Amino acid sequence: MKLINEEVVSNLELDPLFHPRTIAVLGTSENPNKIGYLQLKALLDGGFAGDIYPIHRSAQQIADLTCYPSVKDVPNTVDLAILCVGIDQVEKCLIECGESGVKAAIVFASGYSEIGEAGLVAQQRLKDISDKYNIRIIGPNCVGLLNTTNGLMGTFSPGLTNMPLNKKREAGFVTQSGAFGVLTYIAAAQQGLTFNYFVSVGNEADVGFADVMEYMLHDPNTTIATGYLEGEKNPEKLRKLAKFALEINKPMVIMKSGRSSAGSRAAASHTGSLAGADQVYDGFFKQTGIVRVEDYVDIISFSKLFMSKKTPKGRNAVIITSSGGRGINEADRCESYGLNIHPLSDQVKKEIEKNIPSYASASNPIDLTAAASITHPELFIEPLKVLVNDPDTDIIIFSEFPMGWDENTPELQEFVQLCENSDKFVLVTTFPLEGMSVPKGVGYLEDHGIAFVRGDMNPIRSLAKLVEYRETYEKAKEQRMQAEPKKINKKNIRHLLLENQTLSESQSSEILNEYGIRTAKRAIAQSAEEAVRFADNIGYPVVLKIDSPDIPHKTEVDGIRLNVQNAEEVRKAYDEVYQNATRNCPTATIHGVSIQEMLAEGVEVIVGVTNDPTFGPVIMFGLGGVFVEVFKDVSFRVAPITRQDAIDKMESLKGYELLKGVRNKKPVDREAIIDVLLKVSELIQDYPNEIQEIDINPLIVYENGIVAADALIITK
Amino acid sequence: MKLINEEVVSNLELDPLFHPRTIAVLGTSENPNKIGYLQLKALLDGGFAGDIYPIHRSAQQIADLTCYPSVKDVPNTVDLAILCVGIDQVEKCLIECGESGVKAAIVFASGYSEIGEAGLVAQQRLKDISDKYNIRIIGPNCVGLLNTTNGLMGTFSPGLTNMPLNKKREAGFVTQSGAFGVLTYIAAAQQGLTFNYFVSVGNEADVGFADVMEYMLHDPNTTIATGYLEGEKNPEKLRKLAKFALEINKPMVIMKSGRSSAGSRAAASHTGSLAGADQVYDGFFKQTGIVRVEDYVDIISFSKLFMSKKTPKGRNAVIITSSGGRGINEADRCESYGLNIHPLSDQVKKEIEKNIPSYASASNPIDLTAAASITHPELFIEPLKVLVNDPDTDIIIFSEFPMGWDENTPELQEFVQLCENSDKFVLVTTFPLEGMSVPKGVGYLEDHGIAFVRGDMNPIRSLAKLVEYRETYEKAKEQRMQAEPKKINKKNIRHLLLENQTLSESQSSEILNEYGIRTAKRAIAQSAEEAVRFADNIGYPVVLKIDSPDIPHKTEVDGIRLNVQNAEEVRKAYDEVYQNATRNCPTATIHGVSIQEMLAEGVEVIVGVTNDPTFGPVIMFGLGGVFVEVFKDVSFRVAPITRQDAIDKMESLKGYELLKGVRNKKPVDREAIIDVLLKVSELIQDYPNEIQEIDINPLIVYENGIVAADALIITK
Repeated sequence: MKLINEEVVSNLELDPLFHPRTIAVLGTSENPNKIGYLQLKALLDGGFAGDIYPIHRSAQQIADLTCYPSVKDVPNTVDLAILCVGIDQVEKCLIECGESGVKAAIVFASGYSEIGEAGLVAQQRLKDISDKYNIRIIGPNCVGLLNTTNGLMGTFSPGLTNMPLNKKREAGFVTQSGAFGVLTYIAAAQQGLTFNYFVSVGNEADVGFADVMEYMLHDPNTTIATGYLEGEKNPEKLRKLAKFALEINKPMVIMKSGRSSAGSRAAASHTGSLAGADQVYDGFFKQTGIVRVEDYVDIISFSKLFMSKKTPKGRNAVIITSSGGRGINEADRCESYGLNIHPLSDQVKKEIEKNIPSYASASNPIDLTAAASITHPELFIEPLKVLVNDPDTDIIIFSEFPMGWDENTPELQEFVQLCENSDKFVLVTTFPLEGMSVPKGVGYLEDHGIAFVRGDMNPIRSLAKLVEYRETYEKAKEQRMQAEPKKINKKNIRHLLLENQTLSESQSSEILNEYGIRTAKRAIAQSAEEAVRFADNIGYPVVLKIDSPDIPHKTEVDGIRLNVQNAEEVRKAYDEVYQNATRNCPTATIHGVSIQEMLAEGVEVIVGVTNDPTFGPVIMFGLGGVFVEVFKDVSFRVAPITRQDAIDKMESLKGYELLKGVRNKKPVDREAIIDVLLKVSELIQDYPNEIQEIDINPLIVYENGIVAADALIITK
Repeated sequence: MKLINEEVVSNLELDPLFHPRTIAVLGTSENPNKIGYLQLKALLDGGFAGDIYPIHRSAQQIADLTCYPSVKDVPNTVDLAILCVGIDQVEKCLIECGESGVKAAIVFASGYSEIGEAGLVAQQRLKDISDKYNIRIIGPNCVGLLNTTNGLMGTFSPGLTNMPLNKKREAGFVTQSGAFGVLTYIAAAQQGLTFNYFVSVGNEADVGFADVMEYMLHDPNTTIATGYLEGEKNPEKLRKLAKFALEINKPMVIMKSGRSSAGSRAAASHTGSLAGADQVYDGFFKQTGIVRVEDYVDIISFSKLFMSKKTPKGRNAVIITSSGGRGINEADRCESYGLNIHPLSDQVKKEIEKNIPSYASASNPIDLTAAASITHPELFIEPLKVLVNDPDTDIIIFSEFPMGWDENTPELQEFVQLCENSDKFVLVTTFPLEGMSVPKGVGYLEDHGIAFVRGDMNPIRSLAKLVEYRETYEKAKEQRMQAEPKKINKKNIRHLLLENQTLSESQSSEILNEYGIRTAKRAIAQSAEEAVRFADNIGYPVVLKIDSPDIPHKTEVDGIRLNVQNAEEVRKAYDEVYQNATRNCPTATIHGVSIQEMLAEGVEVIVGVTNDPTFGPVIMFGLGGVFVEVFKDVSFRVAPITRQDAIDKMESLKGYELLKGVRNKKPVDREAIIDVLLKVSELIQDYPNEIQEIDINPLIVYENGIVAADALIITK
């Protein structure tokens, strides 16, 4: 697959999948219970405007369409072939398609990689055919592909074909789970959201999740690209797409499942043991600006909110309710997702109070009381009139709405006009009661760019995500205008990266030094007398540490002496450290004892690199000591990282305040941390095939400057 | 109101509200749009079996019932009066009720405390009438009271009266918000849950939230008492009820809203500034065993789960699904709420694999694939057959279920039998799609004690709460069998608690000492020479601290010198500390300079007390230093606390591992922490009217023993 190119933005290759002029249905059947019939019916019912050619060994006509014995017999170019045949027929059919110049195919059949080794081999054969004939394939083992804007219902699933279509269709959806995808499609349709594209990518023999995302991002009729993801095979592509998506302001909204399957992987470094797969995905989504959502309801509600075409300018939200209890709950929800239920100014409150009853409350949440929902719906407009002009308010949430207002109701018309002339983001939602959840005027509201999302779709969570998306979008815009980061002065260190080794502290430190990361002054002594000489040179007090590639955790063998004050103590410490190491690890190769400067106290942080099976090298940053061990207060980003990634990494720590300086402490040198993070990023980028893991722990940050007190590098 | 007594368990006083033999409806109307008519109609339609007496100035009959001009004219004892009159009529009517011996009343009228001062006065008059005539009142400003088991529909709200009734009615519901309560009632009914009691307590002029809880807990037909709470006026009663509820195994399930309104209150102590109202509620719920839920859906789903009569034995859950994607999502959800999707043993997997297709997966989540939901529903039984005998499995979750099985389907009968003969908790749920969410056999399942909760009711979150409830219940049972805690040796300290003061460190320390809490050795010096003498006595190194009630934060004035090694240094430190204090706080009263033993390093924790406006004294515990300042890693419990509360407080900290000993460190003396917490609890219990706040910070814990290094007490 061609990767997206930052200059050329097109992937016309997938056009025959989404916009075929002609379709052949292979494996058509006359039996209305067979998928070959259901598929044909779906195309006809969907009103597909191009030619449809049913392929059937013997039948003359099915559903009034002329049949052909083979795709080769079709008297026209076939853009898309839909294979409703069993696994035993797939290859033969595909080859015939290839020979007839078919450009794309959908393969429903299962029995491929999902069943293990044998299926994987069969699937590879499909891929070979795809490559040979240049046929883009969706599937196998998929539910199909829909383009609801041209009647291309490329599926046999009645769940997909029986849903009513909403008129606005600009959100695309790609899914790695067929069944979950169908459920999401149906649930969306029930909420008045029809996806323009629905693509079940199945086993991704050829076209994958990222490819479909790419298509949707380039498609002028798609304004938001959503998806359900279990695992991405091509994160590099997703990353480039995400960058592009931010440039053109099309949100990529992905529900990534499998949070719990992270499991714990054995790893020699701290970084490795902390890098749960899900945490890495999380870091990846954050650094790329992909909107990660938690559930299918979020896909639906985020899409609906975004399609209203306004985005909130900030986090200040006012709730307007006719039930105090409901108002408080929505306020709780808003604040738990990071929106701000701000106190209204006295002036705003006074203005609102002028036109609402005395028993109603003009404080946020504004409670119009049951009167508004039962006898005086016109009350709903009063606070709106004032709030559209309140500079402190970004978002106005109606937690209930008059059920009876329709497009002919003057109040609704006034309501819409007020919203349209304002820069506030207005959300109308309702308590989710079946049969009473949808106010009559919803269509009219939506036509005028006012978001309506039912309460059971968790609109507040998505609203908060939308605010976050806007912030990310603005930040990305700014960043693109900033200059490139300065180049790092570095030396060639290939000779230091011995294969498949755990490097000793001094070897690891040397590598860091060559990339401009300052490490503690050190020298390896082979005898107590040499240790004294080095210590005299470095200056007291010093630290003694056993230096051995076989002893990554030196404290565990009692192989460290801190704060050694003079020559005599050095001699004693040398002997102790050496003996402890040889006694506790008799087989370890010992390079000697490292004599190091004793670093002043500072704030201890940790920087590490581990290799993720999906993303390759990922960089971790955290506060050192108990913060990393007990609180697991670390953050990940996929390498390479930008300066902004480094800043976000730092700021996303719960303990970030410790770096900014708490109470009487001065802030530490955060620029120095960013510098180390960028250098480590460059290091791992330069030697991705040589370096497996890095731990710089502790890395000590001062008010000015930063020093690596210990380091561990493991090579591949 | 009589508080619940631990020996006598009854509150017959409220019986006339829930089980009246006769009802008078005051303010009855002939106009079908008036609440006086709606209320009468509701009682008739509800099939209330007792006598109903409409009160109407002039009408002879309404809805075939004989009317009376006044309640005084009714020729029978009236148990319950329902006042459908306006606020101007309420007092007059209530007095007439009182004079006629009416035992209870429901008052719908609004215009009371909710409108402010004037309303509050009117409301007090209702309370006075209630007290004078001993009438129990629900309201005013409420939606009413239902007992769905005897047709007592004490409401005018069509939302409540028009809902179909489910046959199982054993969950009670009390609400402080009328509208939110009605919405919850309707939503519950739509999920097949009919509350036996629905009580909207309105402004709680007489009967409050806790009173209704008390009634429901004592009612033999109620197995679970739920409620929506905005603020409890009588937390002491709620606490006693919660204890009783745990004894009789009736969960109290409360949705407490207003999390976000915590706000920040000005307070001189750390503890005070950290005690957000919601955190205190949280601690209260935890220590009392009240199940705190987040949303109305949890009230519904927890009730449904509990009513199935089984509780899960543990947290190990297996998911059985026909969609891989849906299975993974449910697994994510389970783990995020603390359930454990455990790996199945090879033996169990092998047994399951025997009877499911090769392309299905017997790993947890067990994926039967679309085949099960479309063509082979009987597959759903296969894993169940094996899992009912798997000792590692506590919970079995069906994330889909055959839609067509009904009570006559042999497979459903077999399914039910398997569940009934097993100790596993079985939950059947579905993806929430309108019109396709409820399998036919749900009634049959529920009749046989198998829980069914639709996916949009967040059943997994409630399931996790149910597991937690069972754990709390078991723990409480154990505790009741344990001996009483030992008595604390303490002295009378009233003379030390000067009124309305911030006590100095040495004054505060003296108080702690008298309660057996060890503090650092200290003496207050008035001169540098005296300081040296004291230091010589205490032993070097020492600490010097300015001692002044006006300087609670001594570091801020540079009023502390640590690690002072000898006489000369003491002299210098004395002068510096004294001068810094007088320069920075020229008006402060200075008692002198406190000379203290320099305590060895240990783990720093903080213990504090603050006065909550609702709960009175609450006790805080946390890790000291940056952990409390940056990570806010603290927990609260309402005083007095039990030994178990103290343990839970400790264990609920994120940083609890630091106390258990991380890496090479030994665990600290946790018994000593518990001891201090219990002593502080006793101290604040002994002097609730004298002590406003306490901060013991830092309290230093060692492998053996504990010492308060600094202390601050503020009196009332």
